[in-house]
Amino acid sequence: MSKEFFSVTPVETVFETIAGFPETRIETVPLLNAAGRILAEAVVSDIDLPGFDRSTMDGYAVRASDTFGASEGNPAYLEICGSIAMGEKPETTVSSGTAARIATGGMLPRGADAVMMIEHTSEIDDTTIEVYKRVAPGTHVIGKDEDIKKNTRLLEAGVRIGSREAGVIAAMGRTWVKAYKKPVIGIISTGDEVVPADSVPETGCIRDINTYTLSAAIDACGAAPKSYGIVADRFDPLYALTEKALDACDMVILSGGSSVGTRDLTIEVIEALPDSSVLVHGLPVRPGKPTILARTGIKPVWGLPGHVASAMVIFDIFVKPCILHIGGSTAAAQRPYSIPATLTRNLASAQGRIDYVRVRIIEKDDAYLAEPVLGPSGLIRPMLDADGLIKIDMNTEGLEKGANVRVMPFDE
Amino acid sequence: MSKEFFSVTPVETVFETIAGFPETRIETVPLLNAAGRILAEAVVSDIDLPGFDRSTMDGYAVRASDTFGASEGNPAYLEICGSIAMGEKPETTVSSGTAARIATGGMLPRGADAVMMIEHTSEIDDTTIEVYKRVAPGTHVIGKDEDIKKNTRLLEAGVRIGSREAGVIAAMGRTWVKAYKKPVIGIISTGDEVVPADSVPETGCIRDINTYTLSAAIDACGAAPKSYGIVADRFDPLYALTEKALDACDMVILSGGSSVGTRDLTIEVIEALPDSSVLVHGLPVRPGKPTILARTGIKPVWGLPGHVASAMVIFDIFVKPCILHIGGSTAAAQRPYSIPATLTRNLASAQGRIDYVRVRIIEKDDAYLAEPVLGPSGLIRPMLDADGLIKIDMNTEGLEKGANVRVMPFDE
Repeated sequence: MSKEFFSVTPVETVFETIAGFPETRIETVPLLNAAGRILAEAVVSDIDLPGFDRSTMDGYAVRASDTFGASEGNPAYLEICGSIAMGEKPETTVSSGTAARIATGGMLPRGADAVMMIEHTSEIDDTTIEVYKRVAPGTHVIGKDEDIKKNTRLLEAGVRIGSREAGVIAAMGRTWVKAYKKPVIGIISTGDEVVPADSVPETGCIRDINTYTLSAAIDACGAAPKSYGIVADRFDPLYALTEKALDACDMVILSGGSSVGTRDLTIEVIEALPDSSVLVHGLPVRPGKPTILARTGIKPVWGLPGHVASAMVIFDIFVKPCILHIGGSTAAAQRPYSIPATLTRNLASAQGRIDYVRVRIIEKDDAYLAEPVLGPSGLIRPMLDADGLIKIDMNTEGLEKGANVRVMPFDE
Repeated sequence: MSKEFFSVTPVETVFETIAGFPETRIETVPLLNAAGRILAEAVVSDIDLPGFDRSTMDGYAVRASDTFGASEGNPAYLEICGSIAMGEKPETTVSSGTAARIATGGMLPRGADAVMMIEHTSEIDDTTIEVYKRVAPGTHVIGKDEDIKKNTRLLEAGVRIGSREAGVIAAMGRTWVKAYKKPVIGIISTGDEVVPADSVPETGCIRDINTYTLSAAIDACGAAPKSYGIVADRFDPLYALTEKALDACDMVILSGGSSVGTRDLTIEVIEALPDSSVLVHGLPVRPGKPTILARTGIKPVWGLPGHVASAMVIFDIFVKPCILHIGGSTAAAQRPYSIPATLTRNLASAQGRIDYVRVRIIEKDDAYLAEPVLGPSGLIRPMLDADGLIKIDMNTEGLEKGANVRVMPFDE
């Protein structure tokens, strides 16, 4: 057992360090399989959308001026000059005093500038309709460039492809898209006391949990977890396995080692790897102070504390943004929304470090309460009972019951 | 063109109808591949966790009573009686006046009831330490059943397997788990004016967007989308393709047909399929009133409006809970959290229907604003510009600027 007090790296510096790693390579993927992937190119419209004046209702394409003055008591009479077939360029022209049958989605014929809903008309016979309402030009019509104008910048590289992005890309006629390769993240569990989860631990041993928590968390980041199993707290096997994982993965996470001896070993192994340097050794946060971030070649290597809750919290706050960043996401360090809530009890905190406190989110009187879930960071149960984290800033001595807090909800 | 005014089904009835469909079958999957899957069994602890008294610090296992009265000025002296090797059952016993070296994660030896942090001690020589602090029994120790007690019900069937659930399952020694089969969801695009996204539309035609938006949205539900392409608005091909999709899928979505003629055709096809009935034809909501939900055998068939935004909103509010439900999720109809926000402008609404209004979420002064994004439901751009939906209830005539609203954020 050696030095306990190592110097810590400011959190801002850690995020800058993360932003310095390069992204994975770019590949071309079918849009139908691109959900959840990170877009690697900007998308600019090369067309007007929908490209023609389109009806949004079932009814009649008319000249709006022909309906001025029309009412229930004083209907206008229009002659039916044709029907618009869906998907075809209309042959008919609407001239003054005429109207053409049109369905939702149909293209407006020449001469027409509005659509009269079928509910406000009745067909007197096969050739004539009564119109009970007046419409303004443009009513129930989507103009030819009303959705998207040519040359509009629609999407930037670095966004996640969800349903809305996929729809916009398809509208541009693209069914293949450039995306960043899914990062492959290696997981190595360390610790002489750690045994495979499917074995029965001898007294004094515990099952490997971190491989499973990290694997699921990596999957939820849109990356591909790759488990390398458990390795004992000795230099040679840890070195060999880390080298092997770095060879096949875009990033490696070593988890385990909350004892100083194990942490020192992790540092020793990382420093021995070719072209490596330890960038972060210790964070001013709780839980998770003994976190390590290193660089081997161009790849990040994380050393996470062995305590299950510490590893999960550090993953959420630091490792996840790192995975998102190397996966091409420009929103790397951001959570989209936090939940405003009221704290249900006092929370003490030491100055000079950031505390991440697990909380349960409770809905009450149309608002949210944040109820702290306390417990040592070696336990998994409090993580299961919590819904998210609140942050107590470095320069605060704690938070009082009733304080307004922002909960960062667990998103998986 | 026929009847426009069909009767609508109350929203509560729609959700009850959804809840009536059976879940997909259950399969056994490796826990390492189970992230995002829905658990199909309860998990009850058959062990105490961690199973032994465990140190949470590097230091010395002691009898707390030996440290009472110890201070910087008046240290206690303890004899080192051994070292605890990680992962082993300690052979040493701590008797009064002795202490054993222990690392984080180590098992407490017989006799010891607390751990003294290494920082509060110094080794005088190889056999003796000075202790500068008093500790209470249990300090820096996780009791043998402090994390999870035997017979604790930990997880219920129907939860989504995220990192925390995976960790708890692994802690129970389980590396395979029962999960519901991922639902396979067929997508059929209809409409004579709809052309494949990778083609150049003739004037009057539009590219198929819905296949791509729905596919990505289905993927985000943890289900598997399966595209059947585009079919014309005619009975025979639509019947044949729907039958084919129903044969291979757990649910089928027909999208397109905002015109009454196309809707009538969809109804006709569904009613002609063996063992089919239309359960919902029209919803008291905007957008998306012309939505259809039918049952063919045990499988749901949805007819979504063709307007891209209507289809996406109805998917989010109704189809997604249906997919989650048949996929085994008991949280089917629930969104986890909505974001409290302040509305930035007046919104009108008609009584007797629910309005889902797209909004942009803007952070301002440590709170959120909800800024409505208006535009016809045939446009995709306003969907791209929005971050979520707010609901204007049936019995409200609208909302005023400054109203407190809850935004349901888009989660993909």
